[in-house]
Amino acid sequence: MSATSPVTSAIPGFAAVIPAGGVGSRLWPLSRPDRPKFLLDPLGEGRTLLQATVDRLQPLADSTMVVTGARHADAVAEQLPGLAGANVVTEPSPRDSMAAIALAAALLERRHGPIVMGSFAADHVIRKPAAFEAAVREAVEVARTGKVVTIGIEPTAPLEAFGYIEAGDLLGDTARSVVAFTEKPDTETAERFIATGRYFWNAGMFVMRTDVLLGHVERLQPAIATGARELAAAWDGPRRDDALAQWWPTLTKIAIDHAIAEPVAAEGGVAVVPADLDWNDVGDFDSLAGLLTPRADGVIEVDRGDVTAVQDSPGALVMGGNRPVVVIGIPDAVVVDSGDALLVTTRAAAQQVKNASNLVKNQRS
Amino acid sequence: MSATSPVTSAIPGFAAVIPAGGVGSRLWPLSRPDRPKFLLDPLGEGRTLLQATVDRLQPLADSTMVVTGARHADAVAEQLPGLAGANVVTEPSPRDSMAAIALAAALLERRHGPIVMGSFAADHVIRKPAAFEAAVREAVEVARTGKVVTIGIEPTAPLEAFGYIEAGDLLGDTARSVVAFTEKPDTETAERFIATGRYFWNAGMFVMRTDVLLGHVERLQPAIATGARELAAAWDGPRRDDALAQWWPTLTKIAIDHAIAEPVAAEGGVAVVPADLDWNDVGDFDSLAGLLTPRADGVIEVDRGDVTAVQDSPGALVMGGNRPVVVIGIPDAVVVDSGDALLVTTRAAAQQVKNASNLVKNQRS
Repeated sequence: MSATSPVTSAIPGFAAVIPAGGVGSRLWPLSRPDRPKFLLDPLGEGRTLLQATVDRLQPLADSTMVVTGARHADAVAEQLPGLAGANVVTEPSPRDSMAAIALAAALLERRHGPIVMGSFAADHVIRKPAAFEAAVREAVEVARTGKVVTIGIEPTAPLEAFGYIEAGDLLGDTARSVVAFTEKPDTETAERFIATGRYFWNAGMFVMRTDVLLGHVERLQPAIATGARELAAAWDGPRRDDALAQWWPTLTKIAIDHAIAEPVAAEGGVAVVPADLDWNDVGDFDSLAGLLTPRADGVIEVDRGDVTAVQDSPGALVMGGNRPVVVIGIPDAVVVDSGDALLVTTRAAAQQVKNASNLVKNQRS
Repeated sequence: MSATSPVTSAIPGFAAVIPAGGVGSRLWPLSRPDRPKFLLDPLGEGRTLLQATVDRLQPLADSTMVVTGARHADAVAEQLPGLAGANVVTEPSPRDSMAAIALAAALLERRHGPIVMGSFAADHVIRKPAAFEAAVREAVEVARTGKVVTIGIEPTAPLEAFGYIEAGDLLGDTARSVVAFTEKPDTETAERFIATGRYFWNAGMFVMRTDVLLGHVERLQPAIATGARELAAAWDGPRRDDALAQWWPTLTKIAIDHAIAEPVAAEGGVAVVPADLDWNDVGDFDSLAGLLTPRADGVIEVDRGDVTAVQDSPGALVMGGNRPVVVIGIPDAVVVDSGDALLVTTRAAAQQVKNASNLVKNQRS
């Protein structure tokens, strides 16, 4: 039982899968290839984003599996001592989300027979756990009928940073069929989407029967289906490394959105459970600042070892560092001292931080 | 002979005095009470502002004297190994510029008889040494006639940060009588001043005969005259400490501008030698940035131990630190890493940095 989740009961025949990849480059210099966002605790809450994700899912699931890269396997195991070794699945190299999720599905099916699995990002924040639990329960019910089910976030602003899910007819209490997934729109398009009341943010949460998923993969990405099946057959025995050497390089690199969600939605096979989760992808320092409680003077401090003083800089976010920081005359300033690097920007420019490590690299060369 | 001054000959009977006080609080966190601006090399040129001031004056003068606080005497002596010990005059506590300059005048007169002295700030930058030398030579000539002579900087913009000197009739080649000194004006007033062609920036440079100065002090600030005379009499003998204990606390705390320059100007006793010196008081990070040559991408780097990378931040000034700094989306950003503190501001807000150490203090309490 996790400290951060309410007392609840597991959903019978439901397995949680957490693909833990992705650096989170817009959180540079906190995040780096060797310390990706999911291994961090950017809110200073005492649990990393990965730990909080497991805390949220473990009480709801019969089993919880993390799929991560070889580079991070030790750190993941260290952060999750409660997870049995078989439930940390290590990829030799990144081959995008479809390979990770198909391998998880094939492993779960071999170990437990066909069950319902839910795949959830390792580095998002959900502030309404009860609403999340209710959404997962409904998603599992709809998934049992053979649908691929996504949980769609009720949008709170016409943000360009997210993909949107277009919903159609009602299928159950709140679940609706999915008409289409759309790429990140511009603000005007996003405004139009929201005005219809039929669009939801795509938070990359997918719930479906393992046999349903593997059937779609077989049809639409046969190379991944073959590889996942062969890998799963060898995984829990002595031939795992041989199988990885043989099959891992054959897995097509593609996201589950493009491989399954979009084409199956076009066929009418996807449903969405809309949910108000107080969800945040902690995508950049602006999102992060929105999750934190400012001091009386409007300053947001995280993980500071000395005073933070500001003048004419409301909404400033100052993270890290063991010495005084003074910010003067920069509203919504973002100052991040990671020890080994310093970022100075504003919340409005936070999206551009994804270029930071390249800027450093270019300057070095 | 200094490396930075042209070959020149000393002005006979001319002594240079450099009062070295003042923290330069708008350069926090570079400057601190225990490492004031004059002891720093904020331009990264290999000479501190004090050393550069001595380099500039020593070739022009028969003798050069630095007046500084007890707290900084060792650092001053260390930075100026070429200066004889008698020429570093140590004040037990700060009593503003009139006391320092009067003491210097009295000491010079006891040591050399009445001569012409020139007092120059220890922490300004002059980029046209030949024009400076010419101005000093003319100022000394005018001073020999009994005037208090200031060197006035030809203003290049209607800045509010400076006091202005209002000039009257021509007295010599370029020297003019001074009508009045004015306090720092607002921009509109400064614009009006400059449009007349009769106003110059007050850079705190005063050239005058020691007997003329001490005569004015005797009349206008008799307590300082008495104290300075008594201190000078004891200074080079065994009774210096006794005299300091007795007389130092009696010296009125007042700036030479208010004590002498303003009242003597009203009496018609002050002249100004206008000069185009490419002068800069290095008063804040904006002034400092203006003295430095940007990289091709517009970034100004000083004393950096690793790369500085910027995006959408033209004119950014980044000083200090031994790790990568990335600035994104803040034009004219100022980032100063002094090792023990970090300042983040903009060139437009640079004047407000004087509050920084109080901001830190208030946050600590």
